[in-house]
Amino acid sequence: MRIRNNALRSKIMSAHDAASLIGHGNIVGMSGFTGSGYPKAVPQALAERAEAEHTAGREFRIDLLTGASTGPELDGVLAKADAIARRMPFNTDPIARNAINAGKIDYLDMHLSQLAPIAWEGVLGKMDVAVVEVTAIHENGNLVPSSSVGNNKAWLELADKVILEVNSWQSADLEGMHDVYYGMALPPYRVPIPLVRADQRIGQPHLRVDPAKVVAVVETDAPDRNAPFSPADDSALAIAGHLLDFLAHEVKMGRLPESLLPIQSGVGNIANAVLTGLVDGPFHDMMAYTEVIQDGMVDLLDSGRLVMASATAFSLSPEGAARVNADMARYRDKMILRQQDISNNPEVVRRLGCIAMNGMIEADIYGAVNSTRIMGSRMQNGIGGSGDFARNGYVSVFMSPSTAKGGAISSIVPRVSHVDHIEQDVQVLVTEQGLADLRGLTPRQRARTIIANCAHPDFQAMLLDYLERAEATSFGGYSPMITSEALSWHQRFIETGTMLP
Amino acid sequence: MRIRNNALRSKIMSAHDAASLIGHGNIVGMSGFTGSGYPKAVPQALAERAEAEHTAGREFRIDLLTGASTGPELDGVLAKADAIARRMPFNTDPIARNAINAGKIDYLDMHLSQLAPIAWEGVLGKMDVAVVEVTAIHENGNLVPSSSVGNNKAWLELADKVILEVNSWQSADLEGMHDVYYGMALPPYRVPIPLVRADQRIGQPHLRVDPAKVVAVVETDAPDRNAPFSPADDSALAIAGHLLDFLAHEVKMGRLPESLLPIQSGVGNIANAVLTGLVDGPFHDMMAYTEVIQDGMVDLLDSGRLVMASATAFSLSPEGAARVNADMARYRDKMILRQQDISNNPEVVRRLGCIAMNGMIEADIYGAVNSTRIMGSRMQNGIGGSGDFARNGYVSVFMSPSTAKGGAISSIVPRVSHVDHIEQDVQVLVTEQGLADLRGLTPRQRARTIIANCAHPDFQAMLLDYLERAEATSFGGYSPMITSEALSWHQRFIETGTMLP
Repeated sequence: MRIRNNALRSKIMSAHDAASLIGHGNIVGMSGFTGSGYPKAVPQALAERAEAEHTAGREFRIDLLTGASTGPELDGVLAKADAIARRMPFNTDPIARNAINAGKIDYLDMHLSQLAPIAWEGVLGKMDVAVVEVTAIHENGNLVPSSSVGNNKAWLELADKVILEVNSWQSADLEGMHDVYYGMALPPYRVPIPLVRADQRIGQPHLRVDPAKVVAVVETDAPDRNAPFSPADDSALAIAGHLLDFLAHEVKMGRLPESLLPIQSGVGNIANAVLTGLVDGPFHDMMAYTEVIQDGMVDLLDSGRLVMASATAFSLSPEGAARVNADMARYRDKMILRQQDISNNPEVVRRLGCIAMNGMIEADIYGAVNSTRIMGSRMQNGIGGSGDFARNGYVSVFMSPSTAKGGAISSIVPRVSHVDHIEQDVQVLVTEQGLADLRGLTPRQRARTIIANCAHPDFQAMLLDYLERAEATSFGGYSPMITSEALSWHQRFIETGTMLP
Repeated sequence: MRIRNNALRSKIMSAHDAASLIGHGNIVGMSGFTGSGYPKAVPQALAERAEAEHTAGREFRIDLLTGASTGPELDGVLAKADAIARRMPFNTDPIARNAINAGKIDYLDMHLSQLAPIAWEGVLGKMDVAVVEVTAIHENGNLVPSSSVGNNKAWLELADKVILEVNSWQSADLEGMHDVYYGMALPPYRVPIPLVRADQRIGQPHLRVDPAKVVAVVETDAPDRNAPFSPADDSALAIAGHLLDFLAHEVKMGRLPESLLPIQSGVGNIANAVLTGLVDGPFHDMMAYTEVIQDGMVDLLDSGRLVMASATAFSLSPEGAARVNADMARYRDKMILRQQDISNNPEVVRRLGCIAMNGMIEADIYGAVNSTRIMGSRMQNGIGGSGDFARNGYVSVFMSPSTAKGGAISSIVPRVSHVDHIEQDVQVLVTEQGLADLRGLTPRQRARTIIANCAHPDFQAMLLDYLERAEATSFGGYSPMITSEALSWHQRFIETGTMLP
């Protein structure tokens, strides 16, 4: 039996009834991080309710705060029902994305480590309701978290009312995997976070909730709906190869231990290729201190090369989820799921010295990175945790194929159309063409290195031509720029569908 | 007697002889932070030597690492002598600036908290010599730091050879003001920094040095040469007024305590106006956790409103320095000077919840800030500590008059020509026109708020016109942009000398 507290058992109701406890204009915190551990039933019932209200000519929209991205049964249905007024801190849902870019959803693109503290500060308003998926409820009312922790601790504490979804699809063996730290505070009461190793537990395996705040408990039995696994293509394999060579070189130079430092890795097929490459690499006794545990990281754990993966959520393919769920009691000793203000905490990331490996949309010749805005204006997903790790990591790596849209877009450009990561926070760039180690280089040196090592041959000469003309004519000489041309590649793409002349 | 260790007394020599111990191609770490505590004699002798070498047809250039900016007797003379090959992490010297922009000095513009750890990593090469100004040398060889700590601890540890300048102009009563923390390490050995209050001491008042590494001791008696005090003009007073109103509002809303949170403040007349404004404001028992102690902060200490100023250096006018030097024994109990990897440490800044207040060159309508590059390409000074504080502070404020060059340049532009601080790290913008509180706003909302509250009337209609046309025609709708116009204001300034049409 998953719900073992009698008082909370008495609050079991339908998702429909639970959704009726959420009002128009409410600020709602929901669980969920990269398609894991989000509530599966109440958001759908809420979307139906919003549609009914709209049909009846009444307004119905909420402010929605989560951990990060969720699934179609949350962001998708609520966006489709036009039930989201304001959304933070991250989204990958295509329906919501369109609404965000159309200005119909007010979207705040935030550092993932920072939403919980900012919510605590009170700037975002008082949270009315939390809707949190859990695996089970103890006799004493403690909650066994689900496949993500995200901001659940903060939402359970901040919200006036709490709705719990108890999902029996989640493995009961998840219990004991989580580490929830109750030592966070606002200044002037903050103290050091006592985490000094990625495999260390500093908290407790359960979430607390004030039972008096729990207004509904909803039973579900539904899978997390993550993206399917996309196998590594040649480009991803080439990128992984360059990066593994770099790491091996750093070990050889004595700048990294043979166990590396805790690795942080984004999601997607490049990240998976890197992780898979580490299975056969020379490194051992590795740890991960990262946001998500993806398929490649499970491979790496199974290989024995990785001894511990600390994250805030799973981000597994359906097959990966089945594999981990079937063997959760074993994985439980090799994984720790923490709240995201710890998994992404700048203090901890810096202390541990994470090797930050993140994807990007584009980089410019000086190494500034755009990881959120297509052509500078269209929101793709959001900055997510990349800033938490890139600014604070021991080495900060950004990766992308050198071209997109079948070669029409160069991911190395004269000037990025939007900056998410400033040059100082970008130490290594990798494309399938090669790797640029930018540490210790001036802007002009960075430009030549990036063009030579990372740019696609179709764009290399154009970039060099731009740089040379910029050096000859620029207003200032430190990071030469032709103001009238700096964004012309993007302009050409918008006008002609290609950055090529 | 300032030099009380006999072994080190035996190494007293002329600056000329000491400079001869520095070789061409050496990596040299020197003391100095914002014109305080830099060596006064050896760099000048080194510049003379470099000129002699150049006259003789021989190469002579060094890599120069400091705390931050220094004085004309260091950066100025060495740049004039063409003796600097590579410079980091910060510069304000006009001769060096010209060489940097001409590509004659390889300049690395770095987060000030990060130079020491990056130097420890070994990426920048092995440090050959450290040249460090101190106030006195103890019998046991311990060093009493001077008017800045900066990176001195790291340089003394990393360098093969050490040259000490003992400056008797520095008050002997500086002894006891400093707090040097010897608990820093590289990962995987980093532990929490035990600092939880701005007024806390976690280290020792002296710097250590291996006496065997000391190759020369040079006696000097020369003042720090800081910039003269520039009194607040109407614009600075207006900016300070808006900011003080904002802080009072935050206290009223319960988001800040009446003692505020530790204040961080840049240098210059706006910063001084803010600090002077706090003298007459409603706040009390304040502390500062910042980079530098400037004239306004001394006023604030004397008023009793500020009870402790923690920094890494003085940045005082000549009159301010005379005032503090004359009364150092009293100020010693109200000031702590720390190494810059502590004063600017992201972990500590975040824990304490600093109120970060920094200057800028320009901001764009979405709130991204350029604080380093004139027209995107000409290096002014550098990012300094602004990124350390803005990313990690409790509230991050950027300030500037709304125009420059007699009204020809708007500091609010469609798109900044270079990004040093991304939108997420810029919560409040202030000009003499008003204050924009950007917390919780989407890009489009930020744009309207910034244009309405901060832009100069001469540019307001132009900005709004740009925004409205961007909203109508942009490729993406999240942060609308007209790619071909985004940098056109800068282009117009370059071509015509004004951003006005």
